[in-house]
Amino acid sequence: MSNGAKALIDTLINAGVDTCFTNPGTSEMHFVAALDSTDMKAILCLFEGVATGAADGYARMTDKPAATLLHLGCGLGNGLANLHNARKARVPMINIIGDHATYHTQYDAQLQSDIETVARNCSTWVRTSATTAQLAADAAEAVAVAAGPPAQISTLILPADVSWSDGATAVDAPAVTTPPSAADDVVEKIANALRSGEKTALLLGGRVLREEGLRAASQIAEKTGATLFCEVFPTRLQRGAGVPHVERIAYLAEMASVQLNEFENLILVDAKAPVSFFAYPDKKSYLVPDHCTVHNLVELEQDALESLDALVNAVEASNTKPKLPEPDRPKLPGGKLTGAKVCQAIGALLPENAIISDEAQTSGVMLPAFTANSPKHDLLALTGGAIGQGLPVAVGAAVACPDRPVLALAGDGSAMYTNQALWTMVNEDLDVTVILFNNRSYAILNVELERVGAEGAGMKAKSQLDLSEPPIDFVALAQSMGMPATTVSTARGFNRALENAFKEPGPHLIEAIVPSEFKGLKLKALPHVLGALDSVPAPIAKAIKKKVAP
Amino acid sequence: MSNGAKALIDTLINAGVDTCFTNPGTSEMHFVAALDSTDMKAILCLFEGVATGAADGYARMTDKPAATLLHLGCGLGNGLANLHNARKARVPMINIIGDHATYHTQYDAQLQSDIETVARNCSTWVRTSATTAQLAADAAEAVAVAAGPPAQISTLILPADVSWSDGATAVDAPAVTTPPSAADDVVEKIANALRSGEKTALLLGGRVLREEGLRAASQIAEKTGATLFCEVFPTRLQRGAGVPHVERIAYLAEMASVQLNEFENLILVDAKAPVSFFAYPDKKSYLVPDHCTVHNLVELEQDALESLDALVNAVEASNTKPKLPEPDRPKLPGGKLTGAKVCQAIGALLPENAIISDEAQTSGVMLPAFTANSPKHDLLALTGGAIGQGLPVAVGAAVACPDRPVLALAGDGSAMYTNQALWTMVNEDLDVTVILFNNRSYAILNVELERVGAEGAGMKAKSQLDLSEPPIDFVALAQSMGMPATTVSTARGFNRALENAFKEPGPHLIEAIVPSEFKGLKLKALPHVLGALDSVPAPIAKAIKKKVAP
Repeated sequence: MSNGAKALIDTLINAGVDTCFTNPGTSEMHFVAALDSTDMKAILCLFEGVATGAADGYARMTDKPAATLLHLGCGLGNGLANLHNARKARVPMINIIGDHATYHTQYDAQLQSDIETVARNCSTWVRTSATTAQLAADAAEAVAVAAGPPAQISTLILPADVSWSDGATAVDAPAVTTPPSAADDVVEKIANALRSGEKTALLLGGRVLREEGLRAASQIAEKTGATLFCEVFPTRLQRGAGVPHVERIAYLAEMASVQLNEFENLILVDAKAPVSFFAYPDKKSYLVPDHCTVHNLVELEQDALESLDALVNAVEASNTKPKLPEPDRPKLPGGKLTGAKVCQAIGALLPENAIISDEAQTSGVMLPAFTANSPKHDLLALTGGAIGQGLPVAVGAAVACPDRPVLALAGDGSAMYTNQALWTMVNEDLDVTVILFNNRSYAILNVELERVGAEGAGMKAKSQLDLSEPPIDFVALAQSMGMPATTVSTARGFNRALENAFKEPGPHLIEAIVPSEFKGLKLKALPHVLGALDSVPAPIAKAIKKKVAP
Repeated sequence: MSNGAKALIDTLINAGVDTCFTNPGTSEMHFVAALDSTDMKAILCLFEGVATGAADGYARMTDKPAATLLHLGCGLGNGLANLHNARKARVPMINIIGDHATYHTQYDAQLQSDIETVARNCSTWVRTSATTAQLAADAAEAVAVAAGPPAQISTLILPADVSWSDGATAVDAPAVTTPPSAADDVVEKIANALRSGEKTALLLGGRVLREEGLRAASQIAEKTGATLFCEVFPTRLQRGAGVPHVERIAYLAEMASVQLNEFENLILVDAKAPVSFFAYPDKKSYLVPDHCTVHNLVELEQDALESLDALVNAVEASNTKPKLPEPDRPKLPGGKLTGAKVCQAIGALLPENAIISDEAQTSGVMLPAFTANSPKHDLLALTGGAIGQGLPVAVGAAVACPDRPVLALAGDGSAMYTNQALWTMVNEDLDVTVILFNNRSYAILNVELERVGAEGAGMKAKSQLDLSEPPIDFVALAQSMGMPATTVSTARGFNRALENAFKEPGPHLIEAIVPSEFKGLKLKALPHVLGALDSVPAPIAKAIKKKVAP
C-alpha cells in the first residue's frame, strides 16, 4: 500500500512506461515527490507543448507510450496542438493531468475548468480517477488502451487528493493484445487487383513504412508492377540507401491529383485515402480519381505488417528481390545559401542511422530528393499539420534513442511556437542538431494566400505573413537557453557548421539564412521547385507542369 | 454584398470591435486578405497564447472586446490557457476560429479536429457559422453575447468556404443592453448588516475595483467601520495615491483565513466568496469562517457600480469623505538585488498613470506594499492562475492605451510559456518595460511541494523545479526578438536600468537576477515575507504569525 501517486507510477513502470515528459504545478506535486522512490525517468519541459510533442517523438521511435504530466485544463490546452499531431500519427501516449482535489472542484477556484471535454479532442479514452483505491487499475486501463491495437492516446485525470491519499496498490501490466491479420478474402481480392493488369498503386502508411514493410511492399511492386506511395506526412518513414524507396503523396493537392491520375486501383495499407490538406475554392478535396477503385487491406486494429506479408505470399512475391537504392550522396554545395542547398548538404553529410524530425516547411522541399540515397535514416513528419511539432518531437526521439544522432529541421515561423524545446535539449544534453531555416516569413502562407484565390493582398494582409520586423536572431535565442549556435548564409559556411555539429555530441543550432523560396513566386511556377514529390519520375513532373500551368 | 470574410469584419467594426490579435493559417487567408479593405487593426502574434492574452489585456483596459483570429482546433488549443484566464477575468472577447470548408470536414484531413468541444472550455457561446448569408448575423450575436452583461467570451467558428463565398452583407451593431441594478431589498438587507455593529467586510471584485467603485466602497467603510478587501487576483485594480486602498485577499489560504477570521458579515460586491487556490491535505478549501454570514450585493448580470452607489445611499454615506492615500514613495534601494528591492525601486520610480501587468510570482510579493502610495496606476493580475499571461496581457494593454507606460512583471518560469510576446512588443513598438525576475527556478513550487505535505523531496523531484541548468539568459532571449535588454544584479544597477527604460519610449527588458526567496525556507517562516497581504495591519500580521507558526 502506498499513496496514489506512488502506485500510479509503479503501475506505469510495471507496464513498461518508464519515461515521463513533465510540466508540473501544485496539483502534481505528489506525483513529483513520488518520483525519487521509483524508476520513472522525468524530463522537465518548460512548456506543455514540448512535453506532448516529445512524448510523440518518443513513441514513434520506441513503439511504446511515454507519459506526460500536465497541470489541469490549462496545461492540457497548452499541450493540445502536439497531442493533435500525435493522434494523427496514431502513436500511443498516456497523459496524466493533475486536477484539483475532488472536494475542491465545487468551489470553482481560479484554475478550475472542464478538463474532460478538452481531453476528448485528442484522446479516445478519458477518465477522471475517482478514488485512490481505483487509481492503479485506471492507470493499467489507460496503458492498455494506449498500447492498442490500435495505438492511441489515453488521458487520466488525477485529482490531487486521489494522488496524495494512502490506500493504493500498484497493479501489473495488462496482457498485450495480439492484433489480428487481414481476412483471407480481403487479401485475395487485393491480390487479384494487383494481378489484373490494371494500373495499380499501393499507398503505405503507419507501421509498414519501416524497413521490413517497405521491403515487402517493394517485393509486391517488383512482382506486379505496382507503384508505391506513402502518406504525405508519415509518422516514421525509414529511408535511404538499402531501404526500398517510396514516393510521398504531394502536399499540394494539385500535384497529388496528378500523381494519382493514372491509377485504376489504389490499395491502402494502414493509410487513409488521400485528401487535400485544406479545401480551396473550385478544387477537389478528395484526391482519388473517379475512375480509381480503392481497396483497404487492413482495418485500424489489424496487423498491417503481417497482412502485407500475406499479400506478398498471395501474389507469389516472397522470393522476389526488393528494389534497394544504392548508396549515393550529393556533392557539397557552394555559393550563396538556399533552402535547397541546406538539403543538399544534409544529403552529403548525414551520419549513419540518423533520425530527422522534419518541420522545415517550404525551405525543406528538396530534402527527400537529396537524402534518398544517403545512409539509412528515419524521417518523422508533421502528421497533424499543427506547427510547433518539430523541435519537441526531436527531444522525444533523442531521449528514446540516445545513441543515434537527431536532426531537427525547423522553419522560423514554426520554431517559435515551441522554442522552449531548446532548453530541454540542453538540460538533458541531447544529441540534437537543429537546423533553423530562417526566411523571415510565414513563407508557406504566401503560397496559400494565392491558392485560396485571395490575390492582390495589400499591406495589412502581407504584414500578417512577415517575420522580418524584427527579424528573429535564432543564435541569440539558442544561446539564451545555453545551446551552442551559429548563423550562416553561405553554403560553405553551412557545410562546415553541419560537419562540426555532427562531430560534437550534444545539442547545436545552425541558423541557415535562406531566401523565401516563394516570395513573389506565382503558383503556376510552383511545381518546378516543390519537390515534396520526393524524386518525381520525369513523366509525372512533366504532367504536373502541364496541368498546373494555365 | 461581399464575401463572408469582409462582411464579418465590417460587422465587427460596426460593433466597435476594431482590433484583432492574430495568428492565422491557410483557413484564415480570406479574413487576412479582407483586412486591407477595412479599418480593422490586425496585430500579429507568433503564438496563439499571445493573441488570446493580448485580447484579454486589451479588454481589461478598454472594457470592450477585441477579436482573436486563430487557426483551427490546434490554434485554439494553443490559446486556451489565456482564454481560461480571460474567462476568469470576466472580460469580453470574440474568437474567430478558422475551420476547414464545410464540405471538407467529412474527409478528416490532417488538421481536422473537434473545435467546438475545446471552445466550450472557455466560451459560453460557441457557434460554427453554417452559411455565408448567416455569417454577419452570427458575428453580431457573438458581439452581443461577449459584451454582456455579463461580459464573456464568444467563439465563432468560421469554415473556409463560408468565409470565401460571396453573398454576405454586414449588419449593424446590436443594441447595448443596460444591466439592472441590485433589488432594493437586497441593498437594504446589506445596509442593515453594515449598520448592525457586527464586524463586517466588503469583498470587492470586477468593475468596482476602479477608482469610482473604490471611492464608493471607501465611503461605506468610513461611515460604517467596515473593512475593504479585494479579490486575490483582480482583473483590473486601480490603486496608488489618491485612490482608496483595498487589501487583497492573500494567495496562501493559511493567511487568507486569518484575514477573514474576525468577521461576522462578508459582503460580496461583484466577487466570489474566497476559496483556496488549491486544496491541501487537512486544510480548508472554503475560506469564509463558519460564524460569518455571506451577503451578495449583485448577480453577474447586474450593474455592480450602480448597486454599490445604492448601498452608499442606503447607509447615508454619500457625503462621507473616502479615505485617500497620500502620495509617498519608498526610497531607492541599494546593495545586492532581491525581489523585494525590485519592488521597492518600482515604487520609487513608477511613472504617472502606469499599467502594471503582474505575473511576478514569488519575487513580486512586496509589490503591493511598495507601490501603495506611488502615483495612480492600474494593476492587472493572473485571474485564472494559468501562467504565461503577464507578457501577453501587457501587449494588449499597451495596444489599448498607447499613451500610457506599461510595466510587465514576469518570473523566469512563467515568462517562458509565452516568450513570443516580446516579438509583438517590438513589431508594434509598444511602450512596455518588462521586468524579468530571474531566480532560476519554479520557486513557488518549492513552497507548494512543502504545502501539499510532500516533504523530503529527493533529487528527481527537485530537478522538476530547477531552471538553473542551463540558466536562461533573458537578455539574449529579448535581443533575439529585437528588444533592447540589460541584466542587473545590484539594486543601483536596477534603479538605473528602470529609469532609462521609463525615459525611453518603446519596449525594454530588464533581467533582475534575484535569489529564490523561498529556497530552503520553511513554510512556518513564510508569513514574515509573503506580503501578498498588501500592507497587512500589524495586528493581523501578528495573528498570522501566531497561527501559522507551529
